[in-house]
Amino acid sequence: MRFYKIKPQIRVIGFDDGTFRFKGRGRTILVGVVMKGNKDVLGVLTRWIDVDGKDATDKMIDAINNSRFKDLRVIMLKGITYAGFNIVDIQRLSEETGLPVIVVIRKRPDLKAMESALRKHFSDADERIELLKKAGEVRVLIEGKLYYQTFNMDYGQAEEVIKVTQKSSLIPEPLRLAHMVASAVMCGESRRE
Amino acid sequence: MRFYKIKPQIRVIGFDDGTFRFKGRGRTILVGVVMKGNKDVLGVLTRWIDVDGKDATDKMIDAINNSRFKDLRVIMLKGITYAGFNIVDIQRLSEETGLPVIVVIRKRPDLKAMESALRKHFSDADERIELLKKAGEVRVLIEGKLYYQTFNMDYGQAEEVIKVTQKSSLIPEPLRLAHMVASAVMCGESRRE
Repeated sequence: MRFYKIKPQIRVIGFDDGTFRFKGRGRTILVGVVMKGNKDVLGVLTRWIDVDGKDATDKMIDAINNSRFKDLRVIMLKGITYAGFNIVDIQRLSEETGLPVIVVIRKRPDLKAMESALRKHFSDADERIELLKKAGEVRVLIEGKLYYQTFNMDYGQAEEVIKVTQKSSLIPEPLRLAHMVASAVMCGESRRE
Repeated sequence: MRFYKIKPQIRVIGFDDGTFRFKGRGRTILVGVVMKGNKDVLGVLTRWIDVDGKDATDKMIDAINNSRFKDLRVIMLKGITYAGFNIVDIQRLSEETGLPVIVVIRKRPDLKAMESALRKHFSDADERIELLKKAGEVRVLIEGKLYYQTFNMDYGQAEEVIKVTQKSSLIPEPLRLAHMVASAVMCGESRRE
């Protein structure tokens, strides 16, 4: 699974989640935005995931494999913890979709702090910590501003993909739009009696 | 309320609604996408509206007037019937937001057929038909492909706004994206047990 050249019109999907009110219960929306590079939006996919649950990986796989987008080349995530501590297994996500994964993060993740939070609140902390570790080395793209992790893609190519999908923000456009949509849906949700 | 020149980066909001399963009951999502011309997505707003209800106008006014977007210049609608026969009062929408309205339509609306459907199914048909009539003359932009109506904006300017907000499709980009988001949310909704 290698690219020999990153085209500016590469098809990517970026996932973000909505906000939620209570820890440990309820659900929030998972939004995937499919784009051609940083320009054209080709589609939007949604699923609902459990707050602090374990279904984020399955829901992403399901959304991708059951979509009409057959020419996706990369999955982009904004960190690997969705809906609280619903942690994505990026190895399984990559293997079951046949696509490389790039995780983009604004702050260097504090693994120690996450581990101790998990040990404090989750009986299955070991399993969740395993997923955090699977995500591998955190690389710097811009110190203090942008970090990333990859699975099944080498660093140079991942950096190229990040660059061709950025538009007006450091955050790649599919992730920026997924964030807007997920926030808007949860905001509408809170007004839905 | 007149433009002296339509800038390509004009701020517009385009509203579309989601699908729904049953006539006469339930709700569907209303999605507004705020863009700078046909390029940058500045935000997404959502509300829920009643299928065949009467709240589409109020929900649009509320979404716009309570948003953080203070530099909106035009509202774009895809027809004036949302969520079945939840008809938008474009005069009130325009007056209560202080913005002109452009209604973009793919097919020339069959007013006679709509009127008879309304008379058959709604005890308040007169009131709804009044709203249809208020939307005014349907103008052709491309025969057989694109029509429009306007409120508080002259035809020449409305046509310019439509042109600067089109991108890869005849449908202006804010309306195209609102459609994608609304469809995706209702698709996720149907999988939400």
